[in-house]
Amino acid sequence: MNLKHLPSFLYCVVALGFWTGCAAQHPPQRYAWVTGLKPEKADYYHQLHAAPWPGVLKRIKASHIRNFSIHEREINGQLYLFAYLEYTGTNFDQDMKDMAGDPETQRWWRETDPCQAPLPDAAAAGKIWSDTKEVFFLP
Amino acid sequence: MNLKHLPSFLYCVVALGFWTGCAAQHPPQRYAWVTGLKPEKADYYHQLHAAPWPGVLKRIKASHIRNFSIHEREINGQLYLFAYLEYTGTNFDQDMKDMAGDPETQRWWRETDPCQAPLPDAAAAGKIWSDTKEVFFLP
Repeated sequence: MNLKHLPSFLYCVVALGFWTGCAAQHPPQRYAWVTGLKPEKADYYHQLHAAPWPGVLKRIKASHIRNFSIHEREINGQLYLFAYLEYTGTNFDQDMKDMAGDPETQRWWRETDPCQAPLPDAAAAGKIWSDTKEVFFLP
Repeated sequence: MNLKHLPSFLYCVVALGFWTGCAAQHPPQRYAWVTGLKPEKADYYHQLHAAPWPGVLKRIKASHIRNFSIHEREINGQLYLFAYLEYTGTNFDQDMKDMAGDPETQRWWRETDPCQAPLPDAAAAGKIWSDTKEVFFLP
């Protein structure tokens, strides 16, 4: 290669780097969870989530969670919450442990846990959220 | 600008184009829906969704829907389906109409509709899926 073409070549490498970096992103793992919401605590739960604590959000991000939404719905007179999130890390259990060990997250959960009414399987495991089974996915 | 730098300059423009094109993508609208699943039809519903018809998937994509997943969960002895999807278009109602008018999609729905047990509000509106309320979102 003629050295006078080196700058052009380097720009080309950078361009391709950006392009493939965006196009070939590591596909995330999807998680969808369900729990109950106590009707008398629904307003407080909404208030908390309308202005979530910055330290809690930062810790969620640090655990490689993105595109995380929680949706509420009444079914047969009961309120339920459905969480959807995408995990982009490589060690989900460790990332969840790190989140659970964070003092600010623990303080947050001391506010949110009493609002929620876990399903029997989660309650039996001392957890809040129950897993669901994915039956369809279209990227 | 010295013309001998033109190729480098053009490469730079292309690199920036790819980069900002990826970073500044139009943010999608999230939709999360709920419906019931008849237990005696669950196996057939799973079968259908394990090998969805290509024409149906193509029509969903054409309606600017992406990242579409359906999750199943039993609550109080009943089966429920939770759908999460992202809409990237600019006219949701029209895109839904176009999907509903597609003969292949109509044939698909003639298979899937009888598997589902809509909640009362959806049933009253002649629909399958009920809306939920988003209470939290972290990109």
